Amino acid sequence: MSVPAGYQQNELTTPTRSRERAAYDRETVHAILDAGYVCHLGFVRDGAPVVLPTLYGRVGERLYLHGSTGSRPLRMAGQRDPGLPVCVTVTHVDGLVLARSAFHHSINYRSVVVHGTAYQVTEEDEARAALDALVDHVVPGRAADSRPANAKELAATAVVRLDLEQVSAKIRTGGPSDEPEDIGLPYWTGVLPVTHGYGAPVPADDLAPGIPAPAYLTRL
Amino acid sequence: MSVPAGYQQNELTTPTRSRERAAYDRETVHAILDAGYVCHLGFVRDGAPVVLPTLYGRVGERLYLHGSTGSRPLRMAGQRDPGLPVCVTVTHVDGLVLARSAFHHSINYRSVVVHGTAYQVTEEDEARAALDALVDHVVPGRAADSRPANAKELAATAVVRLDLEQVSAKIRTGGPSDEPEDIGLPYWTGVLPVTHGYGAPVPADDLAPGIPAPAYLTRL
Repeated sequence: MSVPAGYQQNELTTPTRSRERAAYDRETVHAILDAGYVCHLGFVRDGAPVVLPTLYGRVGERLYLHGSTGSRPLRMAGQRDPGLPVCVTVTHVDGLVLARSAFHHSINYRSVVVHGTAYQVTEEDEARAALDALVDHVVPGRAADSRPANAKELAATAVVRLDLEQVSAKIRTGGPSDEPEDIGLPYWTGVLPVTHGYGAPVPADDLAPGIPAPAYLTRL
Repeated sequence: MSVPAGYQQNELTTPTRSRERAAYDRETVHAILDAGYVCHLGFVRDGAPVVLPTLYGRVGERLYLHGSTGSRPLRMAGQRDPGLPVCVTVTHVDGLVLARSAFHHSINYRSVVVHGTAYQVTEEDEARAALDALVDHVVPGRAADSRPANAKELAATAVVRLDLEQVSAKIRTGGPSDEPEDIGLPYWTGVLPVTHGYGAPVPADDLAPGIPAPAYLTRL
Protein backbone atom coordinates (compact mmCIF):
# COMPACT_ATOMS: atom_id res chain seq x y z
CA MET A 1 0.00 0.00 0.00
CA SER A 2 1.45 3.33 -0.93
CA VAL A 3 1.58 5.97 1.75
CA PRO A 4 -0.14 9.12 0.52
CA ALA A 5 1.87 12.31 0.59
CA GLY A 6 1.32 14.69 3.47
CA TYR A 7 -0.64 17.91 3.41
CA GLN A 8 0.93 20.86 1.70
CA GLN A 9 2.99 23.20 3.78
CA ASN A 10 2.28 26.74 2.67
CA GLU A 11 1.71 30.21 4.04
CA LEU A 12 -1.80 29.36 5.21
CA THR A 13 -0.82 26.19 7.03
CA THR A 14 2.47 27.32 8.53
CA PRO A 15 2.17 28.65 12.08
CA THR A 16 3.94 31.93 12.79
CA ARG A 17 5.21 30.54 16.09
CA SER A 18 6.84 27.28 17.18
CA ARG A 19 7.07 25.93 13.63
CA GLU A 20 9.06 22.96 14.88
CA ARG A 21 5.84 21.73 16.48
CA ALA A 22 3.95 21.62 13.18
CA ALA A 23 3.21 18.36 11.36
CA TYR A 24 1.71 17.73 7.95
CA ASP A 25 1.65 13.95 7.59
CA ARG A 26 -1.77 12.39 7.20
CA GLU A 27 -1.35 9.73 9.88
CA THR A 28 -0.68 12.37 12.54
CA VAL A 29 -3.51 14.62 11.38
CA HIS A 30 -6.03 11.76 11.11
CA ALA A 31 -5.10 10.42 14.56
CA ILE A 32 -5.69 13.84 16.17
CA LEU A 33 -9.00 14.27 14.34
CA ASP A 34 -10.16 10.75 15.21
CA ALA A 35 -9.33 11.22 18.90
CA GLY A 36 -12.03 13.89 19.25
CA TYR A 37 -15.55 14.67 18.16
CA VAL A 38 -16.07 18.34 19.07
CA CYS A 39 -14.43 20.92 16.84
CA HIS A 40 -14.54 24.69 16.94
CA LEU A 41 -16.01 25.98 13.70
CA GLY A 42 -15.02 29.50 12.69
CA PHE A 43 -16.71 31.57 10.04
CA VAL A 44 -17.23 35.22 9.20
CA ARG A 45 -20.59 36.90 9.69
CA ASP A 46 -21.06 40.54 8.76
CA GLY A 47 -17.28 40.88 8.68
CA ALA A 48 -16.79 39.62 12.22
CA PRO A 49 -15.49 36.22 13.36
CA VAL A 50 -17.80 33.65 14.95
CA VAL A 51 -16.57 30.47 16.66
CA LEU A 52 -19.04 27.74 17.62
CA PRO A 53 -18.46 24.26 19.08
CA THR A 54 -19.81 21.61 16.71
CA LEU A 55 -19.71 17.84 16.29
CA TYR A 56 -17.75 16.40 13.38
CA GLY A 57 -16.84 13.10 11.81
CA ARG A 58 -14.10 12.15 9.37
CA VAL A 59 -14.52 10.00 6.28
CA GLY A 60 -11.21 9.63 4.50
CA GLU A 61 -10.00 13.05 3.43
CA ARG A 62 -13.25 14.79 4.29
CA LEU A 63 -14.78 16.19 7.46
CA TYR A 64 -18.54 16.24 7.95
CA LEU A 65 -20.24 18.69 10.29
CA HIS A 66 -23.93 18.74 10.94
CA GLY A 67 -26.62 20.72 12.58
CA SER A 68 -30.18 21.82 12.18
CA THR A 69 -31.14 23.36 8.87
CA GLY A 70 -31.98 26.40 11.04
CA SER A 71 -28.41 26.79 12.29
CA ARG A 72 -26.75 29.93 11.07
CA PRO A 73 -23.46 28.68 9.58
CA LEU A 74 -25.02 25.61 8.01
CA ARG A 75 -27.69 27.76 6.44
CA MET A 76 -24.98 30.04 5.13
CA ALA A 77 -23.06 27.08 3.68
CA GLY A 78 -26.20 26.02 1.87
CA GLN A 79 -27.20 29.40 0.55
CA ARG A 80 -23.87 30.69 -0.52
CA ASP A 81 -22.22 29.87 -3.72
CA PRO A 82 -19.37 28.83 -3.68
CA GLY A 83 -19.84 27.65 -0.10
CA LEU A 84 -18.83 29.11 3.24
CA PRO A 85 -15.17 29.84 4.07
CA VAL A 86 -14.47 28.17 7.41
CA CYS A 87 -11.69 27.26 9.78
CA VAL A 88 -12.20 24.08 11.80
CA THR A 89 -9.93 23.50 14.79
CA VAL A 90 -9.66 20.40 16.99
CA THR A 91 -7.62 20.56 20.20
CA HIS A 92 -6.67 17.96 22.80
CA VAL A 93 -4.95 19.05 26.02
CA ASP A 94 -2.55 16.41 27.33
CA GLY A 95 -0.74 18.10 30.19
CA LEU A 96 0.08 21.25 32.11
CA VAL A 97 3.75 22.14 31.81
CA LEU A 98 5.04 23.89 34.93
CA ALA A 99 8.39 25.55 34.43
CA ARG A 100 10.38 27.31 37.14
CA SER A 101 9.73 30.63 35.41
CA ALA A 102 6.21 31.88 34.80
CA PHE A 103 7.31 32.72 31.25
CA HIS A 104 8.06 29.10 30.29
CA HIS A 105 4.81 27.66 31.56
CA SER A 106 3.07 25.83 28.74
CA ILE A 107 0.57 23.18 27.76
CA ASN A 108 1.15 19.83 26.11
CA TYR A 109 -1.42 19.54 23.38
CA ARG A 110 -2.30 18.13 19.98
CA SER A 111 -4.27 20.30 17.59
CA VAL A 112 -5.35 20.32 13.96
CA VAL A 113 -6.39 23.41 12.02
CA VAL A 114 -8.30 22.96 8.76
CA HIS A 115 -8.88 25.90 6.44
CA GLY A 116 -11.31 25.54 3.59
CA THR A 117 -14.78 25.96 2.20
CA ALA A 118 -17.78 24.13 3.63
CA TYR A 119 -20.40 22.92 1.18
CA GLN A 120 -23.83 21.61 2.01
CA VAL A 121 -24.31 17.92 1.23
CA THR A 122 -27.29 17.59 -1.07
CA GLU A 123 -27.09 13.90 -2.08
CA GLU A 124 -29.20 11.77 0.26
CA ASP A 125 -26.79 8.83 0.20
CA GLU A 126 -23.85 11.02 1.15
CA ALA A 127 -25.89 12.72 3.88
CA ARG A 128 -26.91 9.36 5.36
CA ALA A 129 -23.34 8.06 5.30
CA ALA A 130 -22.13 11.31 6.87
CA LEU A 131 -24.68 11.11 9.70
CA ASP A 132 -23.63 7.51 10.42
CA ALA A 133 -20.02 8.66 10.44
CA LEU A 134 -20.86 11.47 12.86
CA VAL A 135 -22.57 9.13 15.32
CA ASP A 136 -19.85 6.50 15.00
CA HIS A 137 -17.15 9.12 15.40
CA VAL A 138 -18.47 9.90 18.89
CA VAL A 139 -19.35 6.30 19.86
CA PRO A 140 -17.93 3.70 17.45
CA GLY A 141 -20.58 1.08 16.76
CA ARG A 142 -23.56 3.19 17.77
CA ALA A 143 -24.91 4.09 14.32
CA ALA A 144 -25.89 0.46 13.65
CA ASP A 145 -27.48 0.22 17.12
CA SER A 146 -29.97 3.08 16.81
CA ARG A 147 -32.90 3.99 14.60
CA PRO A 148 -31.67 5.60 11.36
CA ALA A 149 -32.97 9.03 10.42
CA ASN A 150 -36.28 9.02 8.57
CA ALA A 151 -37.08 11.31 5.65
CA LYS A 152 -38.45 14.06 7.86
CA GLU A 153 -35.41 14.02 10.13
CA LEU A 154 -33.05 13.94 7.19
CA ALA A 155 -34.78 16.99 5.74
CA ALA A 156 -34.34 18.81 9.05
CA THR A 157 -30.62 18.06 9.22
CA ALA A 158 -28.04 20.10 7.38
CA VAL A 159 -24.78 18.27 6.70
CA VAL A 160 -21.78 20.12 5.37
CA ARG A 161 -18.52 18.75 4.12
CA LEU A 162 -15.04 20.18 4.24
CA ASP A 163 -12.20 18.60 2.31
CA LEU A 164 -8.90 18.06 4.11
CA GLU A 165 -6.60 20.06 1.88
CA GLN A 166 -5.28 23.07 3.80
CA VAL A 167 -4.39 21.25 6.99
CA SER A 168 -1.75 21.36 9.67
CA ALA A 169 -1.23 19.71 13.04
CA LYS A 170 0.63 21.19 15.96
CA ILE A 171 1.92 19.14 18.86
CA ARG A 172 3.79 19.89 22.05
CA THR A 173 5.07 17.05 24.22
CA GLY A 174 7.64 16.67 26.96
CA GLY A 175 8.74 18.59 29.98
CA PRO A 176 9.43 22.26 30.68
CA SER A 177 12.32 24.08 29.02
CA ASP A 178 13.69 26.38 31.67
CA GLU A 179 16.49 28.89 31.26
CA PRO A 180 19.81 27.41 32.43
CA GLU A 181 20.15 30.10 35.11
CA ASP A 182 16.78 29.05 36.60
CA ILE A 183 17.69 25.39 37.20
CA GLY A 184 18.65 26.02 40.82
CA LEU A 185 15.44 27.82 41.79
CA PRO A 186 13.46 26.13 44.57
CA TYR A 187 10.26 25.59 42.57
CA TRP A 188 8.77 22.22 41.70
CA THR A 189 8.90 21.70 37.94
CA GLY A 190 7.42 19.06 35.70
CA VAL A 191 4.21 18.07 33.96
CA LEU A 192 0.75 17.46 35.36
CA PRO A 193 -0.88 14.98 32.96
CA VAL A 194 -4.45 15.80 31.92
CA THR A 195 -6.70 12.76 31.69
CA HIS A 196 -9.94 12.23 29.79
CA GLY A 197 -12.32 9.38 30.41
CA TYR A 198 -15.86 8.19 30.80
CA GLY A 199 -18.00 7.46 33.85
CA ALA A 200 -20.44 4.58 34.14
CA PRO A 201 -23.32 4.79 31.61
CA VAL A 202 -26.46 6.38 33.12
CA PRO A 203 -29.61 4.74 31.69
CA ALA A 204 -32.50 6.99 30.67
CA ASP A 205 -35.47 7.04 33.06
CA ASP A 206 -37.66 5.33 30.49
CA LEU A 207 -35.18 2.61 29.43
CA ALA A 208 -37.02 -0.70 29.38
CA PRO A 209 -35.75 -3.30 31.88
CA GLY A 210 -33.48 -5.95 30.41
CA ILE A 211 -31.54 -3.74 27.99
CA PRO A 212 -27.95 -3.72 29.27
CA ALA A 213 -25.38 -1.05 28.42
CA PRO A 214 -23.83 -2.25 25.15
CA ALA A 215 -20.21 -3.42 24.98
CA TYR A 216 -19.24 -0.55 22.65
CA LEU A 217 -20.07 1.80 25.54
CA THR A 218 -18.65 -0.07 28.49
CA ARG A 219 -15.33 -0.63 26.74
CA LEU A 220 -14.84 3.07 25.98
CA MET B 1 -23.57 43.13 47.95
CA SER B 2 -25.68 43.87 44.91
CA VAL B 3 -25.86 41.24 42.23
CA PRO B 4 -24.81 42.76 38.90
CA ALA B 5 -27.23 42.49 36.04
CA GLY B 6 -26.62 39.78 33.44
CA TYR B 7 -25.14 40.24 30.00
CA GLN B 8 -27.30 41.80 27.38
CA GLN B 9 -29.38 39.52 25.22
CA ASN B 10 -29.32 40.85 21.68
CA GLU B 11 -29.04 39.68 18.10
CA LEU B 12 -25.32 38.96 18.44
CA THR B 13 -25.64 36.91 21.60
CA THR B 14 -28.83 35.02 20.85
CA PRO B 15 -28.25 31.59 19.30
CA THR B 16 -30.35 30.76 16.26
CA ARG B 17 -30.97 27.27 17.62
CA SER B 18 -31.99 25.87 21.03
CA ARG B 19 -32.46 29.31 22.57
CA GLU B 20 -33.85 27.71 25.71
CA ARG B 21 -30.30 26.52 26.41
CA ALA B 22 -28.87 30.04 26.44
CA ALA B 23 -27.94 31.84 29.66
CA TYR B 24 -26.83 35.40 30.26
CA ASP B 25 -26.29 35.66 34.01
CA ARG B 26 -22.78 36.46 35.14
CA GLU B 27 -22.49 33.66 37.69
CA THR B 28 -23.16 31.03 35.03
CA VAL B 29 -20.82 32.63 32.50
CA HIS B 30 -18.00 33.14 35.01
CA ALA B 31 -18.28 29.56 36.29
CA ILE B 32 -17.94 28.15 32.75
CA LEU B 33 -14.99 30.42 31.97
CA ASP B 34 -13.26 29.60 35.27
CA ALA B 35 -13.67 25.85 34.73
CA GLY B 36 -11.33 25.95 31.72
CA TYR B 37 -8.12 27.52 30.55
CA VAL B 38 -7.99 26.82 26.80
CA CYS B 39 -10.23 28.90 24.57
CA HIS B 40 -10.63 28.94 20.81
CA LEU B 41 -9.79 32.39 19.50
CA GLY B 42 -11.38 33.34 16.19
CA PHE B 43 -10.34 36.28 14.06
CA VAL B 44 -10.45 37.28 10.41
CA ARG B 45 -7.32 37.30 8.28
CA ASP B 46 -7.50 38.41 4.66
CA GLY B 47 -11.27 37.99 4.83
CA ALA B 48 -11.09 34.37 5.98
CA PRO B 49 -11.75 32.95 9.45
CA VAL B 50 -8.91 31.62 11.61
CA VAL B 51 -9.46 29.66 14.83
CA LEU B 52 -6.54 28.96 17.18
CA PRO B 53 -6.44 27.33 20.62
CA THR B 54 -5.07 29.78 23.18
CA LEU B 55 -4.72 30.08 26.95
CA TYR B 56 -6.82 32.62 28.78
CA GLY B 57 -7.49 33.96 32.24
CA ARG B 58 -10.36 35.97 33.65
CA VAL B 59 -10.05 39.02 35.88
CA GLY B 60 -13.49 40.32 36.78
CA GLU B 61 -15.28 41.33 33.61
CA ARG B 62 -12.22 40.97 31.41
CA LEU B 63 -10.49 38.09 29.67
CA TYR B 64 -6.75 38.10 29.08
CA LEU B 65 -5.12 36.09 26.34
CA HIS B 66 -1.42 35.94 25.77
CA GLY B 67 1.15 34.72 23.38
CA SER B 68 4.45 35.62 21.84
CA THR B 69 4.75 39.08 20.34
CA GLY B 70 5.41 37.14 17.12
CA SER B 71 2.01 35.44 17.16
CA ARG B 72 -0.18 36.53 14.32
CA PRO B 73 -3.45 37.54 16.05
CA LEU B 74 -1.68 39.20 18.98
CA ARG B 75 0.46 41.17 16.57
CA MET B 76 -2.69 42.18 14.72
CA ALA B 77 -4.36 43.27 17.98
CA GLY B 78 -1.36 45.46 18.71
CA GLN B 79 -1.02 46.99 15.28
CA ARG B 80 -4.60 47.68 14.49
CA ASP B 81 -6.53 50.60 15.70
CA PRO B 82 -9.15 50.16 17.09
CA GLY B 83 -8.06 46.62 18.03
CA LEU B 84 -8.83 43.22 16.55
CA PRO B 85 -12.41 41.92 16.28
CA VAL B 86 -12.43 38.47 17.84
CA CYS B 87 -14.72 35.71 19.01
CA VAL B 88 -13.52 33.67 21.98
CA THR B 89 -15.28 30.39 22.71
CA VAL B 90 -14.83 28.08 25.71
CA THR B 91 -16.45 24.64 25.66
CA HIS B 92 -16.69 21.85 28.22
CA VAL B 93 -18.11 18.46 27.20
CA ASP B 94 -19.94 16.75 30.07
CA GLY B 95 -21.58 13.72 28.49
CA LEU B 96 -22.56 11.80 25.39
CA VAL B 97 -26.32 11.62 24.99
CA LEU B 98 -27.41 8.42 23.26
CA ALA B 99 -31.00 8.51 22.08
CA ARG B 100 -32.84 5.61 20.46
CA SER B 101 -32.88 7.50 17.18
CA ALA B 102 -29.66 8.63 15.51
CA PHE B 103 -31.32 12.03 15.00
CA HIS B 104 -31.71 12.78 18.72
CA HIS B 105 -28.14 11.92 19.67
CA SER B 106 -26.55 14.87 21.38
CA ILE B 107 -23.86 16.10 23.74
CA ASN B 108 -24.20 17.56 27.22
CA TYR B 109 -21.99 20.61 27.30
CA ARG B 110 -21.37 24.06 28.76
CA SER B 111 -20.04 26.76 26.46
CA VAL B 112 -19.46 30.49 26.48
CA VAL B 113 -19.11 32.66 23.39
CA VAL B 114 -17.59 36.13 23.74
CA HIS B 115 -17.73 38.60 20.87
CA GLY B 116 -15.67 41.74 21.05
CA THR B 117 -12.51 43.60 20.24
CA ALA B 118 -9.12 42.54 21.60
CA TYR B 119 -6.70 45.28 22.58
CA GLN B 120 -3.05 44.88 23.39
CA VAL B 121 -2.18 45.59 27.02
CA THR B 122 0.51 48.26 27.08
CA GLU B 123 0.68 49.11 30.80
CA GLU B 124 3.35 47.02 32.52
CA ASP B 125 1.36 46.65 35.74
CA GLU B 126 -1.70 45.38 33.91
CA ALA B 127 0.44 43.02 31.82
CA ARG B 128 2.08 41.56 34.95
CA ALA B 129 -1.26 41.11 36.70
CA ALA B 130 -2.68 39.50 33.56
CA LEU B 131 0.21 37.03 33.29
CA ASP B 132 -0.23 36.07 36.95
CA ALA B 133 -3.93 35.59 36.29
CA LEU B 134 -3.17 33.41 33.27
CA VAL B 135 -0.84 31.13 35.25
CA ASP B 136 -3.21 30.99 38.22
CA HIS B 137 -6.16 30.33 35.95
CA VAL B 138 -4.51 27.06 34.84
CA VAL B 139 -3.04 26.10 38.24
CA PRO B 140 -4.40 28.21 41.11
CA GLY B 141 -1.52 29.16 43.41
CA ARG B 142 1.24 28.63 40.86
CA ALA B 143 1.99 32.27 39.99
CA ALA B 144 3.37 32.95 43.48
CA ASP B 145 5.40 29.73 43.33
CA SER B 146 7.43 30.46 40.19
CA ARG B 147 9.89 33.07 39.02
CA PRO B 148 8.04 36.17 37.75
CA ALA B 149 8.72 37.37 34.23
CA ASN B 150 11.74 39.65 33.89
CA ALA B 151 11.83 42.73 31.66
CA LYS B 152 13.10 40.80 28.63
CA GLU B 153 10.41 38.13 28.97
CA LEU B 154 7.72 40.72 29.52
CA ALA B 155 8.81 42.49 26.34
CA ALA B 156 8.56 39.20 24.43
CA THR B 157 5.03 38.51 25.63
CA ALA B 158 1.98 40.05 24.07
CA VAL B 159 -1.04 40.24 26.32
CA VAL B 160 -4.42 41.22 24.96
CA ARG B 161 -7.60 41.97 26.80
CA LEU B 162 -11.19 41.43 25.84
CA ASP B 163 -14.02 42.91 27.88
CA LEU B 164 -16.95 40.66 28.76
CA GLU B 165 -19.78 42.62 27.18
CA GLN B 166 -21.23 40.63 24.28
CA VAL B 167 -21.42 37.30 26.04
CA SER B 168 -23.68 34.29 26.14
CA ALA B 169 -23.53 30.84 27.66
CA LYS B 170 -25.18 27.73 26.29
CA ILE B 171 -25.80 24.63 28.36
CA ARG B 172 -27.32 21.23 27.69
CA THR B 173 -27.91 18.83 30.57
CA GLY B 174 -30.04 15.75 31.14
CA GLY B 175 -30.98 12.66 29.23
CA PRO B 176 -32.06 11.98 25.65
CA SER B 177 -35.36 13.28 24.31
CA ASP B 178 -36.67 10.55 22.09
CA GLU B 179 -39.81 10.65 19.98
CA PRO B 180 -42.75 9.01 21.81
CA GLU B 181 -43.10 6.39 19.07
CA ASP B 182 -39.45 5.32 19.60
CA ILE B 183 -39.77 4.51 23.32
CA GLY B 184 -40.34 0.80 22.64
CA LEU B 185 -37.29 0.34 20.40
CA PRO B 186 -34.75 -2.20 21.67
CA TYR B 187 -31.78 0.19 21.88
CA TRP B 188 -29.97 1.16 25.07
CA THR B 189 -30.52 4.86 25.79
CA GLY B 190 -29.00 7.21 28.32
CA VAL B 191 -25.93 9.32 28.96
CA LEU B 192 -22.27 8.38 29.06
CA PRO B 193 -20.64 10.89 31.42
CA VAL B 194 -17.39 12.43 30.20
CA THR B 195 -14.78 12.88 32.91
CA HIS B 196 -11.77 15.17 33.11
CA GLY B 197 -8.99 14.79 35.61
CA TYR B 198 -5.28 14.85 36.29
CA GLY B 199 -2.68 12.11 36.59
CA ALA B 200 0.14 12.07 39.12
CA PRO B 201 2.61 14.95 38.66
CA VAL B 202 5.66 13.94 36.60
CA PRO B 203 8.79 15.73 37.87
CA ALA B 204 11.20 17.20 35.32
CA ASP B 205 14.42 15.25 34.78
CA ASP B 206 16.47 18.03 36.32
CA LEU B 207 14.26 18.65 39.37
CA ALA B 208 16.50 18.84 42.42
CA PRO B 209 15.92 16.12 45.03
CA GLY B 210 13.88 17.17 48.03
CA ILE B 211 11.36 19.39 46.21
CA PRO B 212 8.00 17.64 46.59
CA ALA B 213 5.01 18.21 44.32
CA PRO B 214 3.21 21.20 45.86
CA ALA B 215 -0.20 20.84 47.51
CA TYR B 216 -1.85 23.10 44.91
CA LEU B 217 -0.98 20.43 42.31
CA THR B 218 -1.73 17.25 44.21
CA ARG B 219 -5.15 18.50 45.29
CA LEU B 220 -6.24 19.33 41.73
